Amino acid sequence: MITPIIFIFSLLLSSSHAAVQDFCVADLSLPESPAGYACKKPAAVTVTDFVFSGLGIAGNTSNIIKAAVTPAFATQFPGVNGLGISLARLDLAVGGVVPFHTHPGGSEVLLVVQGTLCAGFVSSANTVYIKTLKKGDIMVFPQGLLHFQINSGGSQALAFVSFSSATPGLQILDYVLFANNLPTEVIAATTFLDAAQIKKLKGALGGTG
Amino acid sequence: MITPIIFIFSLLLSSSHAAVQDFCVADLSLPESPAGYACKKPAAVTVTDFVFSGLGIAGNTSNIIKAAVTPAFATQFPGVNGLGISLARLDLAVGGVVPFHTHPGGSEVLLVVQGTLCAGFVSSANTVYIKTLKKGDIMVFPQGLLHFQINSGGSQALAFVSFSSATPGLQILDYVLFANNLPTEVIAATTFLDAAQIKKLKGALGGTG
Amino acid sequence: MITPIIFIFSLLLSSSHAAVQDFCVADLSLPESPAGYACKKPAAVTVTDFVFSGLGIAGNTSNIIKAAVTPAFATQFPGVNGLGISLARLDLAVGGVVPFHTHPGGSEVLLVVQGTLCAGFVSSANTVYIKTLKKGDIMVFPQGLLHFQINSGGSQALAFVSFSSATPGLQILDYVLFANNLPTEVIAATTFLDAAQIKKLKGALGGTG
Amino acid sequence: MITPIIFIFSLLLSSSHAAVQDFCVADLSLPESPAGYACKKPAAVTVTDFVFSGLGIAGNTSNIIKAAVTPAFATQFPGVNGLGISLARLDLAVGGVVPFHTHPGGSEVLLVVQGTLCAGFVSSANTVYIKTLKKGDIMVFPQGLLHFQINSGGSQALAFVSFSSATPGLQILDYVLFANNLPTEVIAATTFLDAAQIKKLKGALGGTG
Amino acid sequence: MITPIIFIFSLLLSSSHAAVQDFCVADLSLPESPAGYACKKPAAVTVTDFVFSGLGIAGNTSNIIKAAVTPAFATQFPGVNGLGISLARLDLAVGGVVPFHTHPGGSEVLLVVQGTLCAGFVSSANTVYIKTLKKGDIMVFPQGLLHFQINSGGSQALAFVSFSSATPGLQILDYVLFANNLPTEVIAATTFLDAAQIKKLKGALGGTG
Amino acid sequence: MITPIIFIFSLLLSSSHAAVQDFCVADLSLPESPAGYACKKPAAVTVTDFVFSGLGIAGNTSNIIKAAVTPAFATQFPGVNGLGISLARLDLAVGGVVPFHTHPGGSEVLLVVQGTLCAGFVSSANTVYIKTLKKGDIMVFPQGLLHFQINSGGSQALAFVSFSSATPGLQILDYVLFANNLPTEVIAATTFLDAAQIKKLKGALGGTG
Repeated sequence: MITPIIFIFSLLLSSSHAAVQDFCVADLSLPESPAGYACKKPAAVTVTDFVFSGLGIAGNTSNIIKAAVTPAFATQFPGVNGLGISLARLDLAVGGVVPFHTHPGGSEVLLVVQGTLCAGFVSSANTVYIKTLKKGDIMVFPQGLLHFQINSGGSQALAFVSFSSATPGLQILDYVLFANNLPTEVIAATTFLDAAQIKKLKGALGGTG
Repeated sequence: MITPIIFIFSLLLSSSHAAVQDFCVADLSLPESPAGYACKKPAAVTVTDFVFSGLGIAGNTSNIIKAAVTPAFATQFPGVNGLGISLARLDLAVGGVVPFHTHPGGSEVLLVVQGTLCAGFVSSANTVYIKTLKKGDIMVFPQGLLHFQINSGGSQALAFVSFSSATPGLQILDYVLFANNLPTEVIAATTFLDAAQIKKLKGALGGTG
Repeated sequence: MITPIIFIFSLLLSSSHAAVQDFCVADLSLPESPAGYACKKPAAVTVTDFVFSGLGIAGNTSNIIKAAVTPAFATQFPGVNGLGISLARLDLAVGGVVPFHTHPGGSEVLLVVQGTLCAGFVSSANTVYIKTLKKGDIMVFPQGLLHFQINSGGSQALAFVSFSSATPGLQILDYVLFANNLPTEVIAATTFLDAAQIKKLKGALGGTG
Repeated sequence: MITPIIFIFSLLLSSSHAAVQDFCVADLSLPESPAGYACKKPAAVTVTDFVFSGLGIAGNTSNIIKAAVTPAFATQFPGVNGLGISLARLDLAVGGVVPFHTHPGGSEVLLVVQGTLCAGFVSSANTVYIKTLKKGDIMVFPQGLLHFQINSGGSQALAFVSFSSATPGLQILDYVLFANNLPTEVIAATTFLDAAQIKKLKGALGGTG
Repeated sequence: MITPIIFIFSLLLSSSHAAVQDFCVADLSLPESPAGYACKKPAAVTVTDFVFSGLGIAGNTSNIIKAAVTPAFATQFPGVNGLGISLARLDLAVGGVVPFHTHPGGSEVLLVVQGTLCAGFVSSANTVYIKTLKKGDIMVFPQGLLHFQINSGGSQALAFVSFSSATPGLQILDYVLFANNLPTEVIAATTFLDAAQIKKLKGALGGTG
Repeated sequence: MITPIIFIFSLLLSSSHAAVQDFCVADLSLPESPAGYACKKPAAVTVTDFVFSGLGIAGNTSNIIKAAVTPAFATQFPGVNGLGISLARLDLAVGGVVPFHTHPGGSEVLLVVQGTLCAGFVSSANTVYIKTLKKGDIMVFPQGLLHFQINSGGSQALAFVSFSSATPGLQILDYVLFANNLPTEVIAATTFLDAAQIKKLKGALGGTG
């Protein structure tokens, strides 16, 4: 008969500092470090920290781009903090567009779950990679490159995107140019766009200056 | 009037060594390095390298686990090589199970697209994190930890998993123990399983020794 | 004659923020980050932070596995925090075994100092790598793969293991399966083990459910 | 008297595989890996591999942006391959501009050596960080974020930029939008720019479609 | 007419936890982590955090080495914290020398802005790489290797150095040997230098023991 | 009764490109990359690639330093390539010394197996950390810092060192200064050592110039 094993690994398993860095669930109330959010104490971690239900709800596409992005980054989904991975949901109504943007902190893989998308990115060598994607197709967008997605089908589209970072960031080109206080003359000088064009889009997107 | 810009960045853009490491599409015919497969020459890269359609096809679940895993790792999907990300598709028929396994090289996020799954993992501190997941739910499994997924609903389930590595690896516990030539006495000594149990499962899984 | 050098590097050397990240001795009382424990203030660091004597003491092998693991991870040995390295001591009495386990966070090199060990690991491709090791032999176990060590000689064995992480973690297969509250039916479904076998080992190892 | 030391480290120092990864000078003729170019054989490496004189020559600013960028990335300066660092030279004539661009692979620090620059970047949170820089000032542009530099003084300006990557990449916004074959309707849909504006700039920058 | 876009990315952009890890400006008052200083709250960050003017001022070379090093590491220039890059200024009067030293944490690229320098490093294979550098030349010193710079021209020299780390560290050989309390007999035993030589330089550099 | 499982993971397990990056055993005949040696084809890998017996043999201490270092880096022990770990053996006869040196590529942990050592390192802040170590003691030397070991007992000493890199490198101070062709005047200028002292040690260590 086998008798209960004496807990030989007790130093490891019973330690009050049990966090052996399997994971680091984000505690948003503490100061951040360059590697991500600080860790919640292991004793306070529960399975709900590792599960997120927010991507099950369709985003509101009643807007000018007829699209919605719902992130599950470390800020929304603390369980991925420090693990180099995160997700987001894309809803695109008919005619919907996710405008040109970059993720400064990570690469992205797009998975089409419903509908048809036209997606593309441009490389540092200025080559355009563009493709029409159907349900079940996946496409990768390497880190930091400008890319876009367009609902090119006749029906609602649904996609999920994965990132190689828990905090990939999101920089939307139109927001950078037309939705903040960057002066029109600076934009004109650094993009060659006409001032009238800039002012028109600043008006639409809420930019000042 | 604006006249055509002289290509001031010509050194960068016209270089015959244009690969500025935006990406490194895998060339499976060349020797690998610790960082992944060697890169296809940039001039030979096309958009099809960045797109994969293999996850659009349901895996065959007519097997004893009533489940199928279809990977889109760098080996199958060369565009993700070196980018720290990859995907896979999980099909689980009614009663289907993805048995206990680990990914030695990366963390995983599971996304339920159809059906209901019961998923769980165990930490180094031997805490069990287990949860029933519905359509739209996501769950993260930190790198290297043993985890499993069970179709706990009454219908076919479909899920997609993302990894924080282009080559996360996959080590299925039952395969490690019962589907190779590891001698029964070694397995018995290192797992405390009874020899009869080991032999029964070796028979089922094709193990020898 | 040489006169004393004026301290030209004074900005660096006299800074009250002198920690130029040569090291980051763990302060276990502060919140952790994904990169490890927070750093003790440089002024409070002494040479004893960089020295650990706990591996000089033989572990207690009077237990069912006739073996003991004594870790010198960042939790026990704060000087290695953030440096990507740590050690542990293995004592194996005659017949002693370190059961199947993984280190989710790092690779391991085993060094046999006394006795004879039979050690092995299994790859993602399900190949078994197994070898009898004598005094002075070293063997590497790549990150995250299931591996074991058995005292295969007729005398006490002593080994030291090094890790490529300050917090490699330790997941012992038998603990995952039989020493927590994971329900028997879940274990049966995800391992194909018989319920009787599972209950027998739960009894021996203290598992419930 | 001291007699010559017998070369006790001979295994290390006399090895025919002497490359102990101090450096990896790029051999551009071999296949690349995700971590950079392959290494030149150590025996063929000379000091000239670690020195580059190309940044000593002013770039030609007789172009529409009145500016020139001269890179010393791993492709031009093989000695930095694998070391996570590279440089470039910026020449800006009066009125010169380095238009909005990103470096997908690394952060940048700008050093003004002559003249006055107005430089800025926009964060993921859409905050604008903009500043006039004088001789001796340095400014950091975090990885992957859109940024620009303008000669805002009345004289020629000279600056050097350093990167946290040997191959940081360079994606110039105007090139992405107006200097390739991305169709006008796609650009319009993904930027909200007017078709007339797009066509005007395609004309100036050589774009087609 | 375009109407204002509804802010579809509001979850990201309006979050009170807006820090999506574009950057992590150092807050020197908080505990450090192995990855660097803790981050200042995003709301408190201004453009001045990303700009540093300290390198515009010549260092004081009225000292025995006739040289001065002015660092812009994360401690002095908080904006580079976590970004893997930093700078420093070197001033060398006629006959000035930056003595043999290493940067334990990063590689260095030297840029000569004025004058002529003789610079060199030694590899692990004990090969000497030495070169006379003129204005505009750059030279790379791989991580952790001993190197030096000498003003070999007849006039004041000015150079800037970039590092592949925000906290590269600086270990000056003469300081290690002769400017602390390391006992003379230990130095003699570990360097083969004569005791008289050691004591002479201890006297000059302020060493004790 | 259980029938044999159909191999559902066949795509992964039967792939001709089975290398899922669990490991990358060095093939020294192929070009290196910045991340290490190229990988041997998985089919050619055997357990002997993961085992090394060279550290079981005492080094020859019949030399002026009465010490010997036997490395098990990736060059000698191909199984550790790419895994961020390696070992070495130190033999020190009575009076033996491992002179001041650095490892540019990794941190080190020293384990004393026999005898008594006096070991020390100096930080960037020029603080000396020195300690007498007995059998079983371990001490960590952070990456890139100058350190030494002295046999301070009355008997032969034996130690093993672990590194956080498969190719940590080794730069011995005396070799850098006195065992190559670095000119005496350059050494004098960059170390403040007297020419006579330099010439004496060049004579002993084989240096020229």
